[in-house]
Amino acid sequence: MKNITSVGIIMGSDSDLEVMSGTAQILESFGVAYEMSVISAHRSPELAHNYAVNARKRGLKVIIAGAGGAAHLAGVMASLTTLPVIGIPVKAKTLDGLDSLLSTAQMPHGVPVATVGINASKNAGLLAIQILAVSDSKIEKKLSEYKSKMSSDIGKKNKKLTKIGYKKYLDK
Amino acid sequence: MKNITSVGIIMGSDSDLEVMSGTAQILESFGVAYEMSVISAHRSPELAHNYAVNARKRGLKVIIAGAGGAAHLAGVMASLTTLPVIGIPVKAKTLDGLDSLLSTAQMPHGVPVATVGINASKNAGLLAIQILAVSDSKIEKKLSEYKSKMSSDIGKKNKKLTKIGYKKYLDK
Amino acid sequence: MKNITSVGIIMGSDSDLEVMSGTAQILESFGVAYEMSVISAHRSPELAHNYAVNARKRGLKVIIAGAGGAAHLAGVMASLTTLPVIGIPVKAKTLDGLDSLLSTAQMPHGVPVATVGINASKNAGLLAIQILAVSDSKIEKKLSEYKSKMSSDIGKKNKKLTKIGYKKYLDK
Amino acid sequence: MKNITSVGIIMGSDSDLEVMSGTAQILESFGVAYEMSVISAHRSPELAHNYAVNARKRGLKVIIAGAGGAAHLAGVMASLTTLPVIGIPVKAKTLDGLDSLLSTAQMPHGVPVATVGINASKNAGLLAIQILAVSDSKIEKKLSEYKSKMSSDIGKKNKKLTKIGYKKYLDK
Amino acid sequence: MKNITSVGIIMGSDSDLEVMSGTAQILESFGVAYEMSVISAHRSPELAHNYAVNARKRGLKVIIAGAGGAAHLAGVMASLTTLPVIGIPVKAKTLDGLDSLLSTAQMPHGVPVATVGINASKNAGLLAIQILAVSDSKIEKKLSEYKSKMSSDIGKKNKKLTKIGYKKYLDK
Amino acid sequence: MKNITSVGIIMGSDSDLEVMSGTAQILESFGVAYEMSVISAHRSPELAHNYAVNARKRGLKVIIAGAGGAAHLAGVMASLTTLPVIGIPVKAKTLDGLDSLLSTAQMPHGVPVATVGINASKNAGLLAIQILAVSDSKIEKKLSEYKSKMSSDIGKKNKKLTKIGYKKYLDK
Amino acid sequence: MKNITSVGIIMGSDSDLEVMSGTAQILESFGVAYEMSVISAHRSPELAHNYAVNARKRGLKVIIAGAGGAAHLAGVMASLTTLPVIGIPVKAKTLDGLDSLLSTAQMPHGVPVATVGINASKNAGLLAIQILAVSDSKIEKKLSEYKSKMSSDIGKKNKKLTKIGYKKYLDK
Amino acid sequence: MKNITSVGIIMGSDSDLEVMSGTAQILESFGVAYEMSVISAHRSPELAHNYAVNARKRGLKVIIAGAGGAAHLAGVMASLTTLPVIGIPVKAKTLDGLDSLLSTAQMPHGVPVATVGINASKNAGLLAIQILAVSDSKIEKKLSEYKSKMSSDIGKKNKKLTKIGYKKYLDK
Repeated sequence: MKNITSVGIIMGSDSDLEVMSGTAQILESFGVAYEMSVISAHRSPELAHNYAVNARKRGLKVIIAGAGGAAHLAGVMASLTTLPVIGIPVKAKTLDGLDSLLSTAQMPHGVPVATVGINASKNAGLLAIQILAVSDSKIEKKLSEYKSKMSSDIGKKNKKLTKIGYKKYLDK
Repeated sequence: MKNITSVGIIMGSDSDLEVMSGTAQILESFGVAYEMSVISAHRSPELAHNYAVNARKRGLKVIIAGAGGAAHLAGVMASLTTLPVIGIPVKAKTLDGLDSLLSTAQMPHGVPVATVGINASKNAGLLAIQILAVSDSKIEKKLSEYKSKMSSDIGKKNKKLTKIGYKKYLDK
Repeated sequence: MKNITSVGIIMGSDSDLEVMSGTAQILESFGVAYEMSVISAHRSPELAHNYAVNARKRGLKVIIAGAGGAAHLAGVMASLTTLPVIGIPVKAKTLDGLDSLLSTAQMPHGVPVATVGINASKNAGLLAIQILAVSDSKIEKKLSEYKSKMSSDIGKKNKKLTKIGYKKYLDK
Repeated sequence: MKNITSVGIIMGSDSDLEVMSGTAQILESFGVAYEMSVISAHRSPELAHNYAVNARKRGLKVIIAGAGGAAHLAGVMASLTTLPVIGIPVKAKTLDGLDSLLSTAQMPHGVPVATVGINASKNAGLLAIQILAVSDSKIEKKLSEYKSKMSSDIGKKNKKLTKIGYKKYLDK
Repeated sequence: MKNITSVGIIMGSDSDLEVMSGTAQILESFGVAYEMSVISAHRSPELAHNYAVNARKRGLKVIIAGAGGAAHLAGVMASLTTLPVIGIPVKAKTLDGLDSLLSTAQMPHGVPVATVGINASKNAGLLAIQILAVSDSKIEKKLSEYKSKMSSDIGKKNKKLTKIGYKKYLDK
Repeated sequence: MKNITSVGIIMGSDSDLEVMSGTAQILESFGVAYEMSVISAHRSPELAHNYAVNARKRGLKVIIAGAGGAAHLAGVMASLTTLPVIGIPVKAKTLDGLDSLLSTAQMPHGVPVATVGINASKNAGLLAIQILAVSDSKIEKKLSEYKSKMSSDIGKKNKKLTKIGYKKYLDK
Repeated sequence: MKNITSVGIIMGSDSDLEVMSGTAQILESFGVAYEMSVISAHRSPELAHNYAVNARKRGLKVIIAGAGGAAHLAGVMASLTTLPVIGIPVKAKTLDGLDSLLSTAQMPHGVPVATVGINASKNAGLLAIQILAVSDSKIEKKLSEYKSKMSSDIGKKNKKLTKIGYKKYLDK
Repeated sequence: MKNITSVGIIMGSDSDLEVMSGTAQILESFGVAYEMSVISAHRSPELAHNYAVNARKRGLKVIIAGAGGAAHLAGVMASLTTLPVIGIPVKAKTLDGLDSLLSTAQMPHGVPVATVGINASKNAGLLAIQILAVSDSKIEKKLSEYKSKMSSDIGKKNKKLTKIGYKKYLDK
């Protein structure tokens, strides 16, 4: 799994890169190979078309697409491939992400997009990993450990809070 | 102008046809030739692609696209043609048209869609006519008459209301 | 794949069953075995807990959860399993599905839910199938055929519309 | 009442601690003993489960839960205890608290959460005190004094405003 | 507890009565005595004032107030009593309950209202019972039974669904 | 006051007449003379212009304007007269009145519109009467009586509810 | 008119004072006497009650009330006086003013509040002046001049923009 | 085309100038002559009236109007001219542009406004150019080049991202 690029991360603009880097970080931490591209559904439609049409042939297993405003990138992908497409609604300069969320999630019958929360790029990475883990027990094992660690991290925070109290906790 | 098809009306699903027929009626009443097609950005992406790429060559001057939910049809057109694209946000089964409006209007820099109100198919037709009228004085003359008639119709309603009062007016 | 139950469909209330039957129909049409249960995150929390904890062991590969209002069912599943969880925001009696959508999609870091559109139960089924198709070329082939059929269905509607015009089309 | 821990304050993440400290301050000012924990419904579901199931046995009388986004923490508590659960929708990074409010308030039949305003942690503390005061006349007396003080504080501000005028008042 | 009126149910208009009857039904099923009144914060402000000021003296332990639109009734109660006040946002003719919810929940510091979901009158009754159960073990026992029954009811529905399948289930 | 027309009621379309008749009924019940006209800010702009410019000269004291969607009628009036203008946001076919409310209320500095609730035509009439009552003690006396009657009507409903209980009350 | 206090400006908290000072400035510029008070509908309900009940007797002609969140202050005033009440929805810390607007505008039948835009304190002052001008020709004359000045100010800006161009205009 | 002013850019306030300068920049880059004015629909209604009535006679072909809040400027233009009117909803201080968008887009039948996204002043300029390009092949050629450049710019960003990786890309 480590050597073959399984996940394609794309974004509508390089201004989305800071948000989208969260997806890359998660995939790296799980040792899942990915590629990352700037592809605008609207400004580079032919590029988007080609990317989607060739994705499965090239060996990709999941596409993760982030875009803001009238966010059509994930939908364009989903219309042209049978791969699962994860959509990240990226918060744009107005409306606080609501337009991005609705444009990504409210897809018509026949063409689903697996939508995560607004700007939730790390969750998009985790969802891709969950999808890969359906048929890959090594990745699944890492996911179990990841979940355990999340839980134990909270346990540690709890102990610290109980020990030093909220005032000192906030000071730090 | 009457003999050449100037306006392409497209919609994402034939369930949008009742709304979209308003556009056709307006164009007919102005004697503007049009064509009408069902083209889904998501379920028939290649068809959408071809339609947009060939629209100008085929002699179209304006494209009017209606769709609901994560309404990408107008945006897909706009990404692939230099023609002005008018978008009609069609109210879907949930969210009362808000998702359709935001998905149509909030386009990224470089790819505008001329958005009209939710389900405002007649206004989309009128806007197409206004665009054609920029360089066609005959159509412009008809538009002036249309505006005058709207105003005088309201004048007539007013006289009736003053004459018979609101109670009788409501009974009719 | 046909003989092993791969997909668990759950819903917060049997009042969601009409919506959720769309998921079952899609899975049936693809020959994917599924099970269907009523499990409330709030009214039967222990049941929900047990379902999630045992899902992978029992051989499930994807969980699809539909709920309305403060829709927590998909989130509860996702917190307790490493399987991908698809969430369907079911429109409740007020707020037109907005509360269901936000409660399902806006999950915190670490616990993604693959959210589809409001009441989009068929798309949830298709998304599950796309996930299974990542490692199952037979299902993938069916998906390709499904996509082709959607496109050709639109082509047929188009021919009909061109042939008979919108007025006759609407009469039928 | 002072010596027994009556109120459990929990939050989904230690990033909510600054907001939630308002609850603690109110309880302290009324001399009501409380405990404070970080417990994520999603990242530490077993911890959440145990907390809820044991709350009443451990002597707690009210649980106050704050969380943001798809805020399920209060709902998870309410599903597993007969204690009254107060939910604080904590404003997250997008949507200005609307998602948190809807996820906390719109609970299904059978499992209420007593929801206060977005980030209204002090009001959550006061509501807990009102609940305790139903059967504790000493606390009730303090509440009456608290209400009187609020009113007289406004009277003082009024006198000051009348005396110095709004311009000087704003300068200070 | 059975003989003393513990809960005051009030509503802004008798058009809210159908919704509010859900609260009464829950209280009856738990054997908790209640009284029910139409009191408008805006159309009968003196009545509202008197009700709130005298509520505790008259022996009430919880007030449940339902109102729609700019729903101020619960807030007016909360401003004039130290009793816990539960607010039910009643859906009015426009905006689908959003105005009612925000007007009830977003109270200023110092005056909380325990808000339940839109039209969630039964949950308001259950919340009142949870508050009474803090110091009444008999009521608490009934609550535990109520929760158990909810869970077992879902179990029964599940068995039925598994047995007869969703198609027959929907036919009934 | 009875003989001179004091209030001008205008509406953007005769489809608003049913809502707007509520204003007329209130004014009639107070014996305040009014006139009623259909005037569209958009379809009959010259008519709107003339109405606003001449309103004060013609003896009107208050203008009440109702419109839906991008509701500009009240704003156009306010831009061209020094009379107080009351705006009624009329619920249109989509968005449940939100667009009408925002278009009416959110006026720029310098040109206020006294906005009432969505479809609140009776309240618009009452507000006009309150404005006239500032300098007319007879009208003010009627207003006091109106307020007393509202309160006593609620008292009667209360007695009935107490007497017959909510079940019989709902049956009627 | 200059010597008698005609307008009462009230606000729910002194944190609203900066916004509300705009009302005072407008009234001052028109030479209309006013008084200004901090009165919370929720934290000082008796004060609010007394203010409303005595307002007309004390000679006030208009009340202007500003509040945020579940903004009930204007509504409480309107419930207890026959004077016209102008409501200013003050933007609170969450939801960008939407809750304040809906809580102020969506009043029930019988008790109107003349709502202006969010934070539109100057417009509230102008609306009060328009109401006073109904029966005061001197104030009306000042309003006419105010309107003329607004228009000519824009004319001047226009000339400047035409003369120096937008780039230099923005530099200043 | 270069010597005749084809496009009139207007805005409701000079505080909108920074946003609106984007329109001017686009028109300049295409060599399309424009004029720019501050015209308030509400504060300078006669100026607005005259501008709209004379626009076509003066040779303008498109009007672009930007305004915020209850944004009526584009609508006023559209009511008084047969030219196509492009509306830019300018984000005001509250509600994040939602009020501006709805006030601009939701126009009644008969009077369309071609609405672009919130603050999307550059897209408004491009839409005007698309309209002019319907009958001007030179402009159309420039549009094609503009679209090609957008696409190739993305191609360059892509190469850079692939070459240096997201971490270095973000550092720059």
